[in-house]
Amino acid sequence: MIKSVKKYLSVSGKSMKRSAIREILKLLQKPGMISFAGGLPSPETFPVSDLKEIVAEVLEKHGPESLQYSTTEGDPALRKALTERHRSHGLDISLDNLIITTGSQQALDLLAKILLDPGDYVICGLPSYLGGLNAFSVYGAKLKGIPLDDQGMIPGELEETVSHLRQLGKKIKFIYIIPDFQNPAGITVPESRRLKIIEIAEKYDLLVIEDSPYREIRFEGEPQRMMCELDTTGRVISLCTFSKILSPGFRVGWVIGNAEIIDRLVMAKQTADLCTSAFVQKIIARYIEKGLLDLNLRKTIALYGERRNYMIECLRNYMPADVTWTEPQGGLFLFVTLPAGIDSDQVLKKSIEKNVAFVSGSSFFCNDSGRNTMRLNFSFSPPPDIREGIMRLASVISEEIKGS
Amino acid sequence: MIKSVKKYLSVSGKSMKRSAIREILKLLQKPGMISFAGGLPSPETFPVSDLKEIVAEVLEKHGPESLQYSTTEGDPALRKALTERHRSHGLDISLDNLIITTGSQQALDLLAKILLDPGDYVICGLPSYLGGLNAFSVYGAKLKGIPLDDQGMIPGELEETVSHLRQLGKKIKFIYIIPDFQNPAGITVPESRRLKIIEIAEKYDLLVIEDSPYREIRFEGEPQRMMCELDTTGRVISLCTFSKILSPGFRVGWVIGNAEIIDRLVMAKQTADLCTSAFVQKIIARYIEKGLLDLNLRKTIALYGERRNYMIECLRNYMPADVTWTEPQGGLFLFVTLPAGIDSDQVLKKSIEKNVAFVSGSSFFCNDSGRNTMRLNFSFSPPPDIREGIMRLASVISEEIKGS
Repeated sequence: MIKSVKKYLSVSGKSMKRSAIREILKLLQKPGMISFAGGLPSPETFPVSDLKEIVAEVLEKHGPESLQYSTTEGDPALRKALTERHRSHGLDISLDNLIITTGSQQALDLLAKILLDPGDYVICGLPSYLGGLNAFSVYGAKLKGIPLDDQGMIPGELEETVSHLRQLGKKIKFIYIIPDFQNPAGITVPESRRLKIIEIAEKYDLLVIEDSPYREIRFEGEPQRMMCELDTTGRVISLCTFSKILSPGFRVGWVIGNAEIIDRLVMAKQTADLCTSAFVQKIIARYIEKGLLDLNLRKTIALYGERRNYMIECLRNYMPADVTWTEPQGGLFLFVTLPAGIDSDQVLKKSIEKNVAFVSGSSFFCNDSGRNTMRLNFSFSPPPDIREGIMRLASVISEEIKGS
Repeated sequence: MIKSVKKYLSVSGKSMKRSAIREILKLLQKPGMISFAGGLPSPETFPVSDLKEIVAEVLEKHGPESLQYSTTEGDPALRKALTERHRSHGLDISLDNLIITTGSQQALDLLAKILLDPGDYVICGLPSYLGGLNAFSVYGAKLKGIPLDDQGMIPGELEETVSHLRQLGKKIKFIYIIPDFQNPAGITVPESRRLKIIEIAEKYDLLVIEDSPYREIRFEGEPQRMMCELDTTGRVISLCTFSKILSPGFRVGWVIGNAEIIDRLVMAKQTADLCTSAFVQKIIARYIEKGLLDLNLRKTIALYGERRNYMIECLRNYMPADVTWTEPQGGLFLFVTLPAGIDSDQVLKKSIEKNVAFVSGSSFFCNDSGRNTMRLNFSFSPPPDIREGIMRLASVISEEIKGS
């Protein structure tokens, strides 16, 4: 028998770690577990009966096509429906500016593949989506984090960092940013700040990856234009997905960008998975064409808005003083800060014993800070579980504070 | 505007090319085109009405689960069904030895990611599946081709090449082999030769990637055991897919390998696309559980067997003398050799004008040889198109031979 596969692995293969989030998701299967860990949509938002009709229709009318290979760019009907939808929202794009991906995670992977050489720098938020950071690290990228205020990346810190890295001769490829209801921090970047960040990207000639899975799930406040809409130089590449607005079980996302980048992504996707499932693409295209996406979205927004409110109410009622949290205007997550010195990894261990899970905030900080923070998902659990889960968490945290 | 994205691209991003096959697939849309180019299954083999029932059942009984994220390893029911099916065929594996991928192409990409550093060598057949070669090249691998006889890779040539590369201090990671009804050559490696190749892999401590998408589509002759079944040291990693035996529109494949490799693939898949569609996995699991896969497979085998026979009959009737072809015992392709000096790229250009397409054999040779060869797919086109297409091809080839 070969003793260990380690000797055959690539540098990247050797350095891989299991994602903390994906591993915690497995805990969901433990009976009685209340999980605020995953970024799971609520099953109540899945339009099961509409989909039953649509799938029957797709198989009836497009059976052979839906079961055949699709083109790498994506199903023509779905690309058309998405392009038109964006145009109706004021974004001036054509079919050449859009590719379908196997979820947004694939878009992150393909962008990393076409853009990043080992040692290249990526600028990200402190904190920032773990799955994005891991996708970049796999290609040997160095991550440099920028502190956030309540409007997102702080421009002064961003420019200083970029300028400093440049002086050191480092190659910076792009800024990775989640401007709407940021995962994990729940922060939204206002338009003025978006413009400022684009201005810095222009000055230092960087690309910008705008990761926008939650944008359409806004409970309150005014929508801010997408960074790709504000961009005038073709340097913003935007990632969207059906995972939070329809179903993550379909694994369908899309990328908007300048035609040259989209073309490279097509080449990269050819070797990555040839194409995304024609079957699910045709289902989604029909779903949009029938006007059901926006209807279902309204219900989803209402549901998640209630759950956010309820989670905040429970936090207010049960959490010890000195514990603070963000109050996001949309999305799926809020971010909790414990008193300094309290380690959320310790809290997590004890919480799991009490059947409640979350993700430690430190997972999202590329500089290993944020040890007293935690990400809570409010979309998945029904209100009684939210209440019970927050009570359990509050009791663990109270004990930790007393013991510290 | 940014002038060109080239300056932002990685080494890999710069070196990418569009796949000849995927590009030719686009030609299918031209009216009147007869295509022997793609590796497309016949739409007649898609069990549309069975799937209608099953999808309704899945949405009825497992609606929320099928629309939610799956685990990265794959849907438990599908992994169980596949493991049991392999065990019933004599392959001693457990759940730890199997991961679901987004088609076999993703398996190739993930294996390349975890195994290959730039400059590492991969040993492949001359010719060999283009999508595999491209997946490896993207990670900077060097490809070294081994000539095939009518039993596949020639062991003497294989050992000599490996030994020579070793002496030069080159790092060889694995042998890439398609032992059943090879794409493109249509050759099947007999068990004795499989054992010989495994023996060489052991001697030089290499891994073996057994890519096996066509294995179950055998028209005649005795099945040869999978290389992973013959392997006693855990070095063979095998790739299987539903693309040719059920539907490529689902994008579902699986990998069999030692538990440590599977574990690394899980980590790599986490950053690549999180998981494969739960929806399509649950559909396929139910399809297998109901015993429909084997029933449908029998029909597929009968249909493709007839088409192979008919294509060979047409080749015999219409091709000029000095044109030869393989007569595969299964699979989707046969491989045509034109007289030396006839360039199949030239033939392809003229063929496309006459509305018939194929893939030039040279695409499959990593050493740029095989310029007088062509791959013909016999699964997709119905008999009248096979006849008409071969007649058109024969006339183009005859003219080329006359003109040479």
